[in-house]
Amino acid sequence: MSALLDSIKKPNDIKKIAPENYDRLADEIRDFLVHSVSETGGHLASNLGAVELTMALHLALTLPRDKIVWDVGHQSYTHKILTGRKEEFKNLRQFGGMSGFPKRRESECDAFDTGHSSTSISAALGMVKARDIKGEKSTIVAVIGDGALTGGMAYEALNNASKLNTNLIIILNDNNMSISENVGGLSNYLNDIRTSDSYLHLRDKVYYTMNDNMPRVVSGIRRAKNSLKQLMIPGMYFEDIGITYLGPVDGHNIKNMVRAINDAKRTRKAVIVHVLTNKGNGYGPAERHPARFHGTSPFYVDTGLPKKKKEKADWTDVFSTVMVKMGQRNENVVAITAAMTDGVGLKRFRHSYPERFFDVGIAEQHAVTFAAGLATGGLIPVVCVYSSFLQRAYDQIVHDVCLQKLHVVFAIDRAGLVGADGETHQGILDLSYLATIPGLEVLAPKNKWELSDMMKYAVAADGPVAVRYPRGTACDRFEEFRAPVESGRAEILRRREGMEAGDRKGVLILAVGSMVAEADDVCTILESGGCSCSLVNVRFVKPFDHELIARLAPLHELVVTMEENVCTGGFGERTAAFVEESGIDVPVLPVAIPDAFVPQGTVPQLLKALGMDAESVAGRIRAKLDDGGAGAADGGDRQ
Amino acid sequence: MSALLDSIKKPNDIKKIAPENYDRLADEIRDFLVHSVSETGGHLASNLGAVELTMALHLALTLPRDKIVWDVGHQSYTHKILTGRKEEFKNLRQFGGMSGFPKRRESECDAFDTGHSSTSISAALGMVKARDIKGEKSTIVAVIGDGALTGGMAYEALNNASKLNTNLIIILNDNNMSISENVGGLSNYLNDIRTSDSYLHLRDKVYYTMNDNMPRVVSGIRRAKNSLKQLMIPGMYFEDIGITYLGPVDGHNIKNMVRAINDAKRTRKAVIVHVLTNKGNGYGPAERHPARFHGTSPFYVDTGLPKKKKEKADWTDVFSTVMVKMGQRNENVVAITAAMTDGVGLKRFRHSYPERFFDVGIAEQHAVTFAAGLATGGLIPVVCVYSSFLQRAYDQIVHDVCLQKLHVVFAIDRAGLVGADGETHQGILDLSYLATIPGLEVLAPKNKWELSDMMKYAVAADGPVAVRYPRGTACDRFEEFRAPVESGRAEILRRREGMEAGDRKGVLILAVGSMVAEADDVCTILESGGCSCSLVNVRFVKPFDHELIARLAPLHELVVTMEENVCTGGFGERTAAFVEESGIDVPVLPVAIPDAFVPQGTVPQLLKALGMDAESVAGRIRAKLDDGGAGAADGGDRQ
Repeated sequence: MSALLDSIKKPNDIKKIAPENYDRLADEIRDFLVHSVSETGGHLASNLGAVELTMALHLALTLPRDKIVWDVGHQSYTHKILTGRKEEFKNLRQFGGMSGFPKRRESECDAFDTGHSSTSISAALGMVKARDIKGEKSTIVAVIGDGALTGGMAYEALNNASKLNTNLIIILNDNNMSISENVGGLSNYLNDIRTSDSYLHLRDKVYYTMNDNMPRVVSGIRRAKNSLKQLMIPGMYFEDIGITYLGPVDGHNIKNMVRAINDAKRTRKAVIVHVLTNKGNGYGPAERHPARFHGTSPFYVDTGLPKKKKEKADWTDVFSTVMVKMGQRNENVVAITAAMTDGVGLKRFRHSYPERFFDVGIAEQHAVTFAAGLATGGLIPVVCVYSSFLQRAYDQIVHDVCLQKLHVVFAIDRAGLVGADGETHQGILDLSYLATIPGLEVLAPKNKWELSDMMKYAVAADGPVAVRYPRGTACDRFEEFRAPVESGRAEILRRREGMEAGDRKGVLILAVGSMVAEADDVCTILESGGCSCSLVNVRFVKPFDHELIARLAPLHELVVTMEENVCTGGFGERTAAFVEESGIDVPVLPVAIPDAFVPQGTVPQLLKALGMDAESVAGRIRAKLDDGGAGAADGGDRQ
Repeated sequence: MSALLDSIKKPNDIKKIAPENYDRLADEIRDFLVHSVSETGGHLASNLGAVELTMALHLALTLPRDKIVWDVGHQSYTHKILTGRKEEFKNLRQFGGMSGFPKRRESECDAFDTGHSSTSISAALGMVKARDIKGEKSTIVAVIGDGALTGGMAYEALNNASKLNTNLIIILNDNNMSISENVGGLSNYLNDIRTSDSYLHLRDKVYYTMNDNMPRVVSGIRRAKNSLKQLMIPGMYFEDIGITYLGPVDGHNIKNMVRAINDAKRTRKAVIVHVLTNKGNGYGPAERHPARFHGTSPFYVDTGLPKKKKEKADWTDVFSTVMVKMGQRNENVVAITAAMTDGVGLKRFRHSYPERFFDVGIAEQHAVTFAAGLATGGLIPVVCVYSSFLQRAYDQIVHDVCLQKLHVVFAIDRAGLVGADGETHQGILDLSYLATIPGLEVLAPKNKWELSDMMKYAVAADGPVAVRYPRGTACDRFEEFRAPVESGRAEILRRREGMEAGDRKGVLILAVGSMVAEADDVCTILESGGCSCSLVNVRFVKPFDHELIARLAPLHELVVTMEENVCTGGFGERTAAFVEESGIDVPVLPVAIPDAFVPQGTVPQLLKALGMDAESVAGRIRAKLDDGGAGAADGGDRQ
């Protein structure tokens, strides 16, 4: 069944395969990918689209001497298979298992870690300069999708690559998609190349090239229509800024791609090889629904249907609903996504209010400053983005939104631990980096009703507001607690017994967003052991409720904070500092993510590993209480 | 002498000037700018280049109904003059005076605050969408330099502007410069347009256009040379991605520009008007040295020479020297700047090691990931950048450098308060946002020798290291203290009297970088009043010296931290949290910048206003000691 694939045990083994068997090997790889990902979940459509491209690269290059930088990295599965990691697929994206992204620590054939978009050309350009300065010989290739090319930093890199008088190969893996349909001028331009007569006529011939040094001369160039604008010279856009263009090449024809890559290797410049691929290629359900099979949970191979049905609403679903409602109630509300319409839950909003919906492509920086412009024009923009991707727009939040106190709302999905995507995608810095920004309110809801309430609060506010919520099933506990959301006010969920007596007893837990439910479990555990607890839902990480803390802290033996965020600059640190500076005599135990990146795993696995699940936290609290409340026992986490 | 200029008191007054007097008015404005900036200092070359362009905009538009977004904003002086702010120029960039950048709070004719580069098209596009959704009528114009166009977010915006079926005008103010000479493929492309035969021949005629709806038809299009690549159709690069191109237009010919802007207003698309200007135009010294007159201190008008000579070395000079030395000693050391070769002090390094020097243009994101690529190739990249601009690359520091623990060095100039450039340029967030990043060491030197030592430490390290230092004269005190720089180790500069007795007395000040000298003055003031002080030079903001603090804090009545950084997430907050969590029984007083943006002024003025100068801090310490060390007196600053 997979005799060819089984013969590939290590890098460069593919070169032993006879050319007439390339297509069979591609089929075996595709079959393996579909079945493997159907069990573990993972990125599928992007990987199915890149099977032949990856094979061609491995045939034309010698790894690890040569380097491939996979942009985003969600198309690197075939690369992992061809470099001897096939057996690891059973643990793909699992705790302690193989990453779904390239990792230098996994293999010396992984040249650069990726996860976020549009970094590959910059990194490859750095490798090229290092190679030349050190006088080494190697071929360096960046593989970037047309979606990733909408990110500004890819353009910054292209602009710099123009000056090269040495070889750098950029494979433009063009499937006309980001995760969903691609947007913008460059996308239309590439589409013109894809569909132009000249390409269609040449489809079965070799690619053609603009480069004078190439053996094949330019052909098929002519006015397609009467207007000058339609003068379709494929790749002129890149040639204009000094990048040699080769293509387009059929991305499922291995021999043509090998030839193109070998030609590209001979160019003493930066050269783009424009490869046309189909996302999901070879697996019907993924070809038909590439967005759904971008990242998929386990599914039935025959139907493509998911093995587990969602029983409860996700946070994203809750957000999706409230956005539609707010759009209905207030015609100034507009929504912005950076190529994540489905992911952030804006499909229904787009359907209902297409003229108030903006997908800007993978362009978080533009998304935020565009929102600032919308806000100066009197609209209320909601920027919907994943926590770790918003890192891209830190300066824009500071400089274009908060400095002008503009009323822009940030709906930050995938905040906290995200699970299988691992360290590049964990949203564990946002509470810290957002808190540094003067004038920005930072909120986190405890449950699904509160997410709705907070979004309404944010839209009714008159300055910048960020609401962050996690990936996965929305919390539906605490329905009975639904106090109005007021700036800087926390909410008491549990009061320890006898607090009105004013003595000092029990534990006060201040929990942020997703950790409120975990904290409630901690209370239950502790109270079953006779230790009475108070629980506060922090709501506002900034500005935080000083008054409440100043009032409650002295009535307890210990203050504990809980947040899914790094300790440094987090809510716990700020609370401890406040207690110290206020001279309140009570010890503080901050529970937060230690100063380290967090690998993949399920959220419960990760919380346990970090000592942040309810059992562990209860244990840490007991230890701290036994310790007399003081001591530097928990100072070890932090730097 | 300036009769025409004096007749302009408010927006649109310029329309009363007779066309035959336009050039005279331009001369008067230019004369005013040169004399005014020669007194106060400020941006000169960029403003002299944009006099006629600004006049043309004010003639063709009606403010404030129409909106102009000035990219970066350092070319907005003529705009300020024409909107009634001429008298404010005597207080330009001074404490309480007029900003050197557009400010919405100054005038309703300032549509958007700028300061950082490449934001204008995004903001203008937001305004366009808001205008259309609200059904309003106005013309919205982004004015962007060719330098700012090297920033990726400008490209993200262009990519999105391509879809517009409504009017947006983008004035490309092309002077072939960033602050110094511009770099990259797009710059070469624009230069080709500027110097192509077709343009030169058409110079005295009107501009031409690619747009079919325009009255003037394309002419002069032909193969300039035999190669297809030289087929120079001006603006095809923009047309390819769906942006209409008009130009090039002589940027010092007001009538032609007015005509071009009026034509652009009739286009129902995004349209680029390509305007060719000369930086420094009309003032000899600025024309000859546009980089030196980009931002200038007061100077003599007749010679262009600065009024004050620099007596002592700047921090930048010190860095400049150590970079050259390190480049000599270690051939793996390479330097990267984002269009700031002079500003960050790399001129000498570039001269000595041109092949190891990289100016990437205004492209901080690319700069950092490019450095990551260089590091994987075995080089030691030093990314030299201003603190507030590094905000642009937060995600790249996290995702491309620190996640992979790559040995990239960040030399962060203009950290802390910067003075006259004001709130957009204050480098007061870096200690907080850099500290959030796992694995990154963050250092700040007390004096010029320590900056050298820290740079050498950073280059010899094996992971990511950031060294931040301020603008202005380098501190040359404390020459006698030069302990080796060791990871996570602070340095004791003063020990209070009798500390060896082990009792609890006096004040411990922990000071970061530029605040060490200020803290030393605080000690002198306090000791003159009989309060003995210990002073620690923090050196490592992360990882900070827990052990030293844990050892010294209990020997003092009060711990004070001092840093030129916001309180939130800063060193003071982290120290207070550490003291609290460690159960050390001593109050902590963090001296830091309150949670607010800081306007322009001299650094001493700003420190005083913020209560951070030596006198004020000494007063705050005395108040805290009188208060018995406790109380929430200083909690009010923070949120």
